[in-house]
Amino acid sequence: MRPYLKDPAAIYAESFATVEREARLGRFPESLRPLVTRVIHACGMVEIADRLAFSDDAGEAGRAALATGAPVICDCEMVAAGITRARMPAANEILVTLNAPGVPELAKRLGTTRSAAAVELWEGRIEGAIVAIGNAPTALFHLLDRLDAGWPKPALILAFPVGFVGAAESKAEIAADSRGVPFVALKGRRGGSAMAAAAVNALGGEPA
Amino acid sequence: MRPYLKDPAAIYAESFATVEREARLGRFPESLRPLVTRVIHACGMVEIADRLAFSDDAGEAGRAALATGAPVICDCEMVAAGITRARMPAANEILVTLNAPGVPELAKRLGTTRSAAAVELWEGRIEGAIVAIGNAPTALFHLLDRLDAGWPKPALILAFPVGFVGAAESKAEIAADSRGVPFVALKGRRGGSAMAAAAVNALGGEPA
Repeated sequence: MRPYLKDPAAIYAESFATVEREARLGRFPESLRPLVTRVIHACGMVEIADRLAFSDDAGEAGRAALATGAPVICDCEMVAAGITRARMPAANEILVTLNAPGVPELAKRLGTTRSAAAVELWEGRIEGAIVAIGNAPTALFHLLDRLDAGWPKPALILAFPVGFVGAAESKAEIAADSRGVPFVALKGRRGGSAMAAAAVNALGGEPA
Repeated sequence: MRPYLKDPAAIYAESFATVEREARLGRFPESLRPLVTRVIHACGMVEIADRLAFSDDAGEAGRAALATGAPVICDCEMVAAGITRARMPAANEILVTLNAPGVPELAKRLGTTRSAAAVELWEGRIEGAIVAIGNAPTALFHLLDRLDAGWPKPALILAFPVGFVGAAESKAEIAADSRGVPFVALKGRRGGSAMAAAAVNALGGEPA
């Protein structure tokens, strides 16, 4: 077998150098570049830089919220599993309600998905939180619905739902009107838990 | 806000119908199509169908191994988090050694990454297992090294490491010579935990 790079620091440096070299990062504010770079690193696709919608204050808003102890609310366990606890500056709580008791019944009663029903359980924690959606378009749609209905605002929405039904549409919706909430969204069908977790990790900073 | 599809069964049906309509599935054996379809569904990219390398027996090998109780060995917690336990036919153990005690020290001693060092702990469980790699190229390289050194063979390797250093190279290596082990690999930089987990879930079958 041919030799391959084994040194973690060298792998890390070469990976991020490739992203810097190949991705078009010029249109992003400095405060967002670490997030964009890390999301690209998580998916292996430099071209997604051209498909990210964002508000200019998203980087600052996310970092400030984490620094002051905001919880990170995720739409699924995979996003939570991808968040590096050592990068969180205030031992921030990572919250997933998808598998909470009663969610399947709530979904039936509301006539929606479990992912959307699980959003209902965010109400008491949403104010000032970081929301990281890496799977379900219906979770993003449902959250936007609740914000329209008067819910308090989260600090930041990281919108990376993925797939063929509703993913592009839900991200187009937040990109067109984020309800006054700072946001980052990958337009189109692509997305996923690894990107959502990478975005959170970038905002947290380097481990101590 | 515009109306959106909320019915889980309708979302599921429309998603998979889109994959069937848009992806080129003709070159895959029937036994692999559910896996290919589900991996595409997990990443939102129909074009990856054209970039999958595989052995013809991968579908049968994976299903048979799961049915007889094989463990699923994952390179990171995100893959494990994405596996739907209800789809596993024999309450199959899902194993991740990345965060086991001693792995950081072992990585230093071996002069490699934590992900590669964690593979060392697979030795007693590898025979007949399903291996699902969704993150680290060095884990795949290290496993191939150990197979070359005489380790017993797993039943199937699902190779979806991602990124800019070693991902394309490690998957080219297994595609060129899988050491007699059935495999599926997504060529190039793309990959990820969601795809690896989706491949495992497809082999498990529908929940009871």
